[in-house]
Amino acid sequence: MSLFRDDLQALLNGPLHPWLAHVAPQLASWQQQPHGDFKRWQRVLAQLPALKSDTYQLGDTVSVGNIEQASDSQRAQLQGLLKQLMPWRKGPFELFGLHIDTEWRSDWKWQRIAPHLGDLSGQQVLDVGCGSGYHLWRMLESGADHAWGIDPGELFLTQFQAIRSYMPAAIAKRAHFFPLGVEHLPTQNNFDTVFSMGVLYHRRSPIDFLYQLRHQLKRGGQLVLETIISEGDEHHVFMPGERYAKMRNVWYLPSTGALSHWLKRCGFSEIELLDVSTTTTDEQRRTPWMENESLADFIDPNRPNLTIEGYAAPRRAVFRARRA
Amino acid sequence: MSLFRDDLQALLNGPLHPWLAHVAPQLASWQQQPHGDFKRWQRVLAQLPALKSDTYQLGDTVSVGNIEQASDSQRAQLQGLLKQLMPWRKGPFELFGLHIDTEWRSDWKWQRIAPHLGDLSGQQVLDVGCGSGYHLWRMLESGADHAWGIDPGELFLTQFQAIRSYMPAAIAKRAHFFPLGVEHLPTQNNFDTVFSMGVLYHRRSPIDFLYQLRHQLKRGGQLVLETIISEGDEHHVFMPGERYAKMRNVWYLPSTGALSHWLKRCGFSEIELLDVSTTTTDEQRRTPWMENESLADFIDPNRPNLTIEGYAAPRRAVFRARRA
Amino acid sequence: MSLFRDDLQALLNGPLHPWLAHVAPQLASWQQQPHGDFKRWQRVLAQLPALKSDTYQLGDTVSVGNIEQASDSQRAQLQGLLKQLMPWRKGPFELFGLHIDTEWRSDWKWQRIAPHLGDLSGQQVLDVGCGSGYHLWRMLESGADHAWGIDPGELFLTQFQAIRSYMPAAIAKRAHFFPLGVEHLPTQNNFDTVFSMGVLYHRRSPIDFLYQLRHQLKRGGQLVLETIISEGDEHHVFMPGERYAKMRNVWYLPSTGALSHWLKRCGFSEIELLDVSTTTTDEQRRTPWMENESLADFIDPNRPNLTIEGYAAPRRAVFRARRA
Amino acid sequence: MSLFRDDLQALLNGPLHPWLAHVAPQLASWQQQPHGDFKRWQRVLAQLPALKSDTYQLGDTVSVGNIEQASDSQRAQLQGLLKQLMPWRKGPFELFGLHIDTEWRSDWKWQRIAPHLGDLSGQQVLDVGCGSGYHLWRMLESGADHAWGIDPGELFLTQFQAIRSYMPAAIAKRAHFFPLGVEHLPTQNNFDTVFSMGVLYHRRSPIDFLYQLRHQLKRGGQLVLETIISEGDEHHVFMPGERYAKMRNVWYLPSTGALSHWLKRCGFSEIELLDVSTTTTDEQRRTPWMENESLADFIDPNRPNLTIEGYAAPRRAVFRARRA
Repeated sequence: MSLFRDDLQALLNGPLHPWLAHVAPQLASWQQQPHGDFKRWQRVLAQLPALKSDTYQLGDTVSVGNIEQASDSQRAQLQGLLKQLMPWRKGPFELFGLHIDTEWRSDWKWQRIAPHLGDLSGQQVLDVGCGSGYHLWRMLESGADHAWGIDPGELFLTQFQAIRSYMPAAIAKRAHFFPLGVEHLPTQNNFDTVFSMGVLYHRRSPIDFLYQLRHQLKRGGQLVLETIISEGDEHHVFMPGERYAKMRNVWYLPSTGALSHWLKRCGFSEIELLDVSTTTTDEQRRTPWMENESLADFIDPNRPNLTIEGYAAPRRAVFRARRA
Repeated sequence: MSLFRDDLQALLNGPLHPWLAHVAPQLASWQQQPHGDFKRWQRVLAQLPALKSDTYQLGDTVSVGNIEQASDSQRAQLQGLLKQLMPWRKGPFELFGLHIDTEWRSDWKWQRIAPHLGDLSGQQVLDVGCGSGYHLWRMLESGADHAWGIDPGELFLTQFQAIRSYMPAAIAKRAHFFPLGVEHLPTQNNFDTVFSMGVLYHRRSPIDFLYQLRHQLKRGGQLVLETIISEGDEHHVFMPGERYAKMRNVWYLPSTGALSHWLKRCGFSEIELLDVSTTTTDEQRRTPWMENESLADFIDPNRPNLTIEGYAAPRRAVFRARRA
Repeated sequence: MSLFRDDLQALLNGPLHPWLAHVAPQLASWQQQPHGDFKRWQRVLAQLPALKSDTYQLGDTVSVGNIEQASDSQRAQLQGLLKQLMPWRKGPFELFGLHIDTEWRSDWKWQRIAPHLGDLSGQQVLDVGCGSGYHLWRMLESGADHAWGIDPGELFLTQFQAIRSYMPAAIAKRAHFFPLGVEHLPTQNNFDTVFSMGVLYHRRSPIDFLYQLRHQLKRGGQLVLETIISEGDEHHVFMPGERYAKMRNVWYLPSTGALSHWLKRCGFSEIELLDVSTTTTDEQRRTPWMENESLADFIDPNRPNLTIEGYAAPRRAVFRARRA
Repeated sequence: MSLFRDDLQALLNGPLHPWLAHVAPQLASWQQQPHGDFKRWQRVLAQLPALKSDTYQLGDTVSVGNIEQASDSQRAQLQGLLKQLMPWRKGPFELFGLHIDTEWRSDWKWQRIAPHLGDLSGQQVLDVGCGSGYHLWRMLESGADHAWGIDPGELFLTQFQAIRSYMPAAIAKRAHFFPLGVEHLPTQNNFDTVFSMGVLYHRRSPIDFLYQLRHQLKRGGQLVLETIISEGDEHHVFMPGERYAKMRNVWYLPSTGALSHWLKRCGFSEIELLDVSTTTTDEQRRTPWMENESLADFIDPNRPNLTIEGYAAPRRAVFRARRA
């Protein structure tokens, strides 16, 4: 359990302490399973240079330290090691002057959301499908007491740990990552705010997913939901073919009207559409830290408003709703 | 376990014997739970008059005995008791001259399906959501070796038991009903043919449901799937509001193209659309054996092609597909 | 489950049917585990010559067929195969003139017990630690409706199956063997008579064992318990050193007074000591069907009343008691 | 989980952290069960006067504070509340001048054991059947890093909490009590020293109990075992009748030779008999804090070396052994 000691500590001493009995056994059995490259990634983590700084920023670029606080060779070592944790998707980050230029400008997404969040001060917030944990740091910036991320990806866990290992202790101890799915969490309505960004369209059952998100919220708590949408009236749900933007596991793309209706049927109220944006190749793109295909490869080069399969290119909506 | 003794017997001695270890404990715990009116219904069952006949028909009207084989008073007693098991939805049935005029002309549905089924001889067939079990008898008529119905409804179980109790033993021992959901069955690919008629639109996750149906099929086995559909191209899925035809629990209504696509994504092949029919108030209607509201009450009286909520009135498609 | 089909059938159709839900899953998972030589032994079983006879005896020598009903070469084949299932401990048996001279003259033990049993007619009886199942056949001889043996030994299961395979169907279907321990049986008080012969002294907790036996008995049902005893008053329990008669797993040897007292504390009444006998080298000895060491090797050659370790040589008591 | 927060904290941050995944769910479900008077006792606990002191003694009388640090009325209040938690068996304790004169002079037992314990510095120690937790404090006195007590008794848990609530934080955080049985602990060989005093003779299976104790020990760790013994050679085990010294649940009383032999069979080595003492009516007696019957009532008034049932009066042996 040593891997999650600080996180269990935070559970134990905070309002989420009833979680402990559910989560501790799952993490224990998780640690006993083999996870492909996880051991290798953890060895990378263990080799990271021992750099320290009290300087940090939880702003658009989540950063620790500055260029003077590490030598060039330390920075080169840092770069070499962190590149072994590629692909880096959500960011950007900067560590001691080393910029991690991630596939996504996740700061742009946050800029669209943050103004609508209200004050997160003192809140327990949950990010379902948190990836590298970039937004967890932004939630702390917005005042959250503790930001809890869950994502089944072991690489993302390792990336998160790498960033956290450089954060000053007072900040580090407020950000958490468990390699669990939302379906494994106790349904105890513990959170003030629950985020889910970019997950719903990968779900075979978005309705069950919305219920699961709702079960994490306190009465009156808010859900922030971002997903790919389709055009159409409130009864319209789009189902692509075998692939959408080359992704194999895309299921339902509701219209904003339909998604609003889903939220209502799943017991949410005060449903607001905060933003609709077309994803651009400036926001999601190949970088030296993510060398695989990215959005530009998924879009019809001649008709940029269509995916390579001929569907409407990704447009994303952000909803806010409250648990009634 | 005595309630299901004959059914467990059939499991044990047939190709489904690996089921026994999964199903027996579930039935045992099912029997230990209270189920509202179930005990009362079982008492009705115990009082049915002891009539016997070797005459039976598994045709459009599933029938046992004839009018000469019961006295008027016995028939009156039979009627009085069976009416305590109302509402009767799937049928029609006839017992010793007593006609049970059910809400549905389920024989019409069968007439649309039967010509496409091929020879069921020697098959193990499964009917998911079998209701009173009407179609189980028709499957036996079509040659099935054993017809297994599942439905969580305890009233339907009792109706099935009532009919079966009058069937000659040689037929009775080939029809079975377990009060289980498809998600509780072992995923052992045991069946030659799986039927699901009128269930999919009640599912929060039709995709998971299709996978569950597939897990019941032998390689090469056939699925017969009937559900309410919507108009539109292959990417179109319709989601009604809080109610559809006054039903609260209707989720996705795919177009026939979308449903065909779902089947493909879930691992089916040789997908054929066998029939599309608009449900009429001749096929589904209030009768002396089902005195609640029926289709006529769900349809806009002035615009019979619309539901009372203003959606397209129910049209149903039947698909046949094979497990690849 | 095919290995136990006939046994599950007997459960289903008899008073033990509530067992089915408990036992079927355990047998299913048992069959999925590897058991050393079990597959090899089952292959031996599959090769047994197809001999048939209506002649059988459930007397001192449990036998099927006679010498005329098999050729010499068939008998030689039978002998060669059955010798692959050595060691044969409980018996004797005879198949088509082939005598299986087992280590134990289990018929002598039965002769000491049988006169005290009363009438077993119509009873469900259980033999805990039944070995090859020899006594199961004797229980049927005494009128038991069904005789159920349990023993974790897979070799004993195979020996039982070999004998049963030659029994006429009407007898075979009344004898059963499950490779389970008494702690795995449902505690449903199903049996009229429970036998445990030669097990208690191998138990780390004989008190818990007595409670387990009691849980198998109907109210008023009888326990027949045979075990090795020591001399002494009712408070005296003997615990040998690391080995007793070369056996490593011998724990408590109570005096007859102490054992009587244990039975009382565990809720038995009408406790009777039926027999005390010193085991002789005529009753337990090496034979061509059990070529390992036997009693003569466990006894001090110069002081036959002592084990080779210097303890009192085995004396066995038989108790009968009733569940109060 | 708040009841055990400090204890879980100690688990998390110490060498027992693998326990967390096993113990947290058990404590959570324990807290959801009703436990007779436990709520009432916890209300007593909540009313204890808020007294503070840095003065404490972990000596023969485990004490906190002195007579000057509480007013007479506070002491009266304290007495009134603590008497609601009677009977107090293991002690003595003293709180702010209030002496809790327990049934047992547990300090005498400790005086017989302590000289043999060696240095407990830095150790994790476990006390199985710890009662009020008196000896936990003595173990801390002897240098143990953390002393963990387990006992299923909810009253004892409350008594422990009462004493702990007055201990200075630095001491309090090193003593722990879980309402669990040894059979519920993970078998992870975590402890340097395991104590079991006065439990073995209540066990139906002392052999299984010794194995359970062994599973708690590190390789080379020491067991301190105290139990009632009988006279006799190494093969002699005494089993009393229905009652022994009026106790209904006394099973096996081995001779010291037999117990030594048990320890050896269960995988212990370096087995030493540290002490044998007859329990006197000075050591175990009725007091104003335990008003039920005590030893004097269990002994034959005319033959003080015999129990009231006529058995040898309680003599207790202490063994020390190591896990090989």
